[in-house]
Amino acid sequence: MKHYLAQVTITLRTSILDVQGKTVEHALHALHMPSMSNVRIGKHIQINVHAPDAETAKEQVETACMKLLANPIMEDYSVTITELAGAMA
Amino acid sequence: MKHYLAQVTITLRTSILDVQGKTVEHALHALHMPSMSNVRIGKHIQINVHAPDAETAKEQVETACMKLLANPIMEDYSVTITELAGAMA
Repeated sequence: MKHYLAQVTITLRTSILDVQGKTVEHALHALHMPSMSNVRIGKHIQINVHAPDAETAKEQVETACMKLLANPIMEDYSVTITELAGAMA
Repeated sequence: MKHYLAQVTITLRTSILDVQGKTVEHALHALHMPSMSNVRIGKHIQINVHAPDAETAKEQVETACMKLLANPIMEDYSVTITELAGAMA
């Protein structure tokens, strides 16, 4: 069994209005940063996973995304797995 | 002037207890996923930036992180810039 670091990025689907992002965009413009637009705010989740190999780790994290972490109707998710050297980092 | 996509990842510093992450970790264990541990939850922000070059775009986004997006006392941030082909994507 090895240790992996899973990095999950969860974003609202582009068809869905991101109210929090719009608010941040207005705040950036109010702070004299007019060059920024189309702000979208999502979640970034890091998880340590104990699994025999990277594919199994990715499957487990995708199951967690579907069951708990993401709302598959409104959100997209992507998972990146990297192996952690030695013991738990 | 070119269009860039900035991807900002904001994470709580490791010395700070992540209560939301702990709660998600307990929920994962309750869903029979005991192989996952050390869950940390942060933010992932996408911003379109209009700038003459990638360095300027990165500087602008880092300024936005310091002034508005992140809390530099409790959070770390990283910025990745990619050029968008053609007009606004």
